[in-house]
Amino acid sequence: MKLDAIYKPVKEDLLRVEDKLKSISEVEFSHLSELLGYILTGGKAIRPVLTLLCGKFYKYNLDRLLPMATAVELLHIATLAHDDAIDNSMVRRGRPTINCLWGQDRAVLLGDYLFAKAGELTATTKNLRVIMLFAQTLETISSGELNQSHNAFNLEQTRENYLQRISSKTASLFVLATESGAALSQAPEKSIKILNEYGYNLGIAFQIVDDILDFTGTEEEMGKPIGSDLTQGTLTLPAMLFLERYPEDNPVKKLFQKEDKEKNIRLAIELIGNSPVIKESYDVAAEYCFKACRNLNLLPDNPSRQALLDIANYIIRRRK
Amino acid sequence: MKLDAIYKPVKEDLLRVEDKLKSISEVEFSHLSELLGYILTGGKAIRPVLTLLCGKFYKYNLDRLLPMATAVELLHIATLAHDDAIDNSMVRRGRPTINCLWGQDRAVLLGDYLFAKAGELTATTKNLRVIMLFAQTLETISSGELNQSHNAFNLEQTRENYLQRISSKTASLFVLATESGAALSQAPEKSIKILNEYGYNLGIAFQIVDDILDFTGTEEEMGKPIGSDLTQGTLTLPAMLFLERYPEDNPVKKLFQKEDKEKNIRLAIELIGNSPVIKESYDVAAEYCFKACRNLNLLPDNPSRQALLDIANYIIRRRK
Repeated sequence: MKLDAIYKPVKEDLLRVEDKLKSISEVEFSHLSELLGYILTGGKAIRPVLTLLCGKFYKYNLDRLLPMATAVELLHIATLAHDDAIDNSMVRRGRPTINCLWGQDRAVLLGDYLFAKAGELTATTKNLRVIMLFAQTLETISSGELNQSHNAFNLEQTRENYLQRISSKTASLFVLATESGAALSQAPEKSIKILNEYGYNLGIAFQIVDDILDFTGTEEEMGKPIGSDLTQGTLTLPAMLFLERYPEDNPVKKLFQKEDKEKNIRLAIELIGNSPVIKESYDVAAEYCFKACRNLNLLPDNPSRQALLDIANYIIRRRK
Repeated sequence: MKLDAIYKPVKEDLLRVEDKLKSISEVEFSHLSELLGYILTGGKAIRPVLTLLCGKFYKYNLDRLLPMATAVELLHIATLAHDDAIDNSMVRRGRPTINCLWGQDRAVLLGDYLFAKAGELTATTKNLRVIMLFAQTLETISSGELNQSHNAFNLEQTRENYLQRISSKTASLFVLATESGAALSQAPEKSIKILNEYGYNLGIAFQIVDDILDFTGTEEEMGKPIGSDLTQGTLTLPAMLFLERYPEDNPVKKLFQKEDKEKNIRLAIELIGNSPVIKESYDVAAEYCFKACRNLNLLPDNPSRQALLDIANYIIRRRK
C-alpha cells in the first residue's frame, strides 16, 4: 500500500499542513525566506500525519491539530538540519543539504529558528501538556544525539544502549506526534496511553528499518549516501548483530579501530547487506510494529485506526 | 557601584537561580552532566537578575519567577554555545569554549539541549503569554544571528541595519527577561510596557558597549579575544562611524575586502580604539540607557526600581 492511499483519512488536512509550512517561509528577511523555502519542501510527512490521525478518535479540533502537526514536522526538519551540519553530510532527501549550499553556520541557525517556530506553533494550541511534552521531546532528542556523538566509534555498546539511543533520538518524536494528537482531541487517558505506546514502538521500528536500509538501500531510494552510520561511527542493530556473530576479523571492528576506513566500510556494507542479520533485524523491527498495534483495537473503530495499522505495515516494508 | 551591591534586592533569590542551574547538570548521562557542569558556571547573571527585579513591583511569585529567571539565563548560555561553535571561537568567559574542548558537534547539541531545558522551565510557569514570548524570542535571536552571518564582510550596511540586528540578537532577550518578570507578577499592562521598553533600550545599550569593548577592552577583562567582531566580519557601531568619518584608505574597508587580514585588524583596533568614534558610540549607548530609565519613575518606588537604574548606570561604565 502506498503512503498516499494510507493518508486518505487526513488527506485534505495534510494539504493544509503543507500550506502552513509554505507560509512559514514567507518572511521579510529574504535570505531567511530562501533558506526556509528550500528546507521546508519534500519529506514523507509521516509525523504530522500521525498527529492528525491520532486526533481523529475523539473531538477532532483542527484549530489545534493543524499547528501541532506542523510543529512536529518542523521539529523533525530542525533536527535534520543540525544532524547534517554536525555530520557534515552533503546530501539529504536527494538534494544538497543547507550546510553544503550555505555553510554550517546557516544550518545551525536555521535549525534554531525552526525549533523556535515549532515551539511557537505548539504554544498556539494553548495546551500546557503538549507544550511541556514538546520541550521535553527536544531535550530527549538532543540528549540522544549527544549520546550517539559521544559513543561514536565505540565498540563496547550493548543492544540496550542502542535501544536507549534510538528511543531518545527517534521514538520520542513519534510519541510527541501521536500523544499530542490524542491530547488535543480530548482523548481519555487510557486512549492517550495506547497512542503514546503506538508512537513509541512505531518510532523504534522506524529507526531500526532506517538503520537496515543504510546497508541494503540505494542512494537513489534513500536520498542520501548508504553506509552513513558506519562513516559516522554509529553502531546500529545490523552492525551489532554482525559483530556478535563474527567477532573475529570483522570489517566493522577494523573500521571502528580506524583501520583503512574506505575499504572496511565497503566491505561491511557488502557483508552485512547479504548476511542473515538483515532478516534478524527486520524481525526485531516487526516485533515493535506488532507491539505498536496490539492495543489499537481498544480505540473507536474508524478509518484512522486502519491507517495507523497500515502505517505500521508500511514502515516495515518501505524501501525509502 | 559593583554588581554585587546592585543585585542586593534579589541576592538570596539569585542564589536559588544558581542552585537551580547547578541542579540541571545533575543528569544520569555522565558526559552530558560533565558538559552542563562546565557551561553552567560563571557569567554576570544580568538577565536573570532583571527577571527577578522586574517581578518585585507587584505580586512577587518566586515559584514562577525562579524557573523563568533560570530559563532566561539558559537561553542566553545556549545562544553563546551556538555562537562559539559557529564562529569557531576558542575562549569565552576566560575559559576554553565547549567546541574548543569537545568539538563543534557537542556545542551544537548541548545548545539544543539547553534551549529545550529553558523551554521546559518556561512551561512550568504555566503562563501562556511568557511561553509564547519565549518561543518568539528564540525566533528573533536566531533570525538576528542569521542576518549577521549573511551580512558578514558586507560594507553596505546602514546604522538602521545595525540597530535592527542588535535589537534581534541582544535586546530581544533583555525584553524576555524584563517582560516575563513583570507578567509573572501580575503587573498591569502599563507597567509591563514600561519594563518591556526598559529591557529593549537597556539591551541595545548593553550591546553597543559590548561592541565598543571589542575595540577598547583587554582579553583579560572581556574573557575573550579583542577584535572578534572584525575577525568575523561583523560591522558594529564604532567601525561604522569610523568608516563614515574616514571613507578613504580605511583598514576596516581593506579588511572587509579581504586584504591582509591580520595587519588590518590590528590597525583597525588601534585606530578605532583611540578615535573620537568611541566617545560617539558611548553617547549613543548613553542615550539608550536614558530612554531605558525615563519611565521607571511611574512604577512603585522600591529598592528594585533603584537597582534597575543602577544597572543602566553600570552597563555604560562596565569594563567587562
